[in-house]
Amino acid sequence: MARWEPGTAERMQQAALELFATRGFEQTTAAEIAAAVGLTERTFFRHFSDKREVLFHGQDQLLSCFLDGVAAAPADAPPMRVVEHALRSSADYFPDERRPRSRARQAVVDAVPALRERERHKLATIAEAIAAALRGRGVPEPAATLAAESGMTVFAIAFTRWLHEDERRSFAQVADWVLDELVGLTAGR
Amino acid sequence: MARWEPGTAERMQQAALELFATRGFEQTTAAEIAAAVGLTERTFFRHFSDKREVLFHGQDQLLSCFLDGVAAAPADAPPMRVVEHALRSSADYFPDERRPRSRARQAVVDAVPALRERERHKLATIAEAIAAALRGRGVPEPAATLAAESGMTVFAIAFTRWLHEDERRSFAQVADWVLDELVGLTAGR
Repeated sequence: MARWEPGTAERMQQAALELFATRGFEQTTAAEIAAAVGLTERTFFRHFSDKREVLFHGQDQLLSCFLDGVAAAPADAPPMRVVEHALRSSADYFPDERRPRSRARQAVVDAVPALRERERHKLATIAEAIAAALRGRGVPEPAATLAAESGMTVFAIAFTRWLHEDERRSFAQVADWVLDELVGLTAGR
Repeated sequence: MARWEPGTAERMQQAALELFATRGFEQTTAAEIAAAVGLTERTFFRHFSDKREVLFHGQDQLLSCFLDGVAAAPADAPPMRVVEHALRSSADYFPDERRPRSRARQAVVDAVPALRERERHKLATIAEAIAAALRGRGVPEPAATLAAESGMTVFAIAFTRWLHEDERRSFAQVADWVLDELVGLTAGR
């Protein structure tokens, strides 16, 4: 199963977060990020296509977590149960020790409109991949897209909540809670 | 209640759609759009801040439709019932006679990544406004954001379906159908 592991890219990411937080995203260069961990600009661009990408490295791993969860769901599981499996599996990407780093990253993303757009695009891409995986399991439309998009809505709300300063629950617990809220809301219509 | 009415901006929009469809979005200038309906570039920029905006004029009216629906829901309506009212009200913005024009517009938006991003941003803005209106009615978080985002998921899926060449149902009927699907999906978890 895909799981978060630090490496060269992660070290540059960590340095980038610190520089973005202190100097601002616009004011920080790729060369400065690389230099902060003893590397060259060339090494930076071997890992990231641009400065924006340094904040979205790991997106493929996160997507893999979701899709692993879809694949692990029983063949006869209804669509929202499959999405529940995907959400549980995405929690592997957000162990509690990662919370401070995720908070720092989100503060940078929230402050820059272009980064918020990139983030929305990222979530939309994951939703499309989950919908495709559901269709691959025989789920028709619009159920496949509805279930996938609802899953990403739950994910986004749970993620924001998980980052709250006073939130102590694990990401998996928060995601379960938000999913239950959604089920209650729609049942209560 | 906000309802679609053609005017100077609408005429330029119509001309823009035709030019974008035949020549492409990038290859069409604001001056050409204005000239096509006997107006000047200056008039164009009195109505739109840039060429992209010509495709998103009317966003405020659409938002008003949603919020009118929220306001018209009974005070004791549960959150997803309020969202249902908002969706029904948004259908006022999409009478059947508007379908060909909406199809032409969507084909342009789908073809240009920057326009797709702008579209996602538009839907996110409407979701935030509905969530704020729900909080104003006393709905707590995360229910307010969940209900609002779910409503916009239903809206986006219903809208895409409504634009299908072989779709004959009204927008209100399609939106009802997608909302029922969502309720069935979550109940079936």
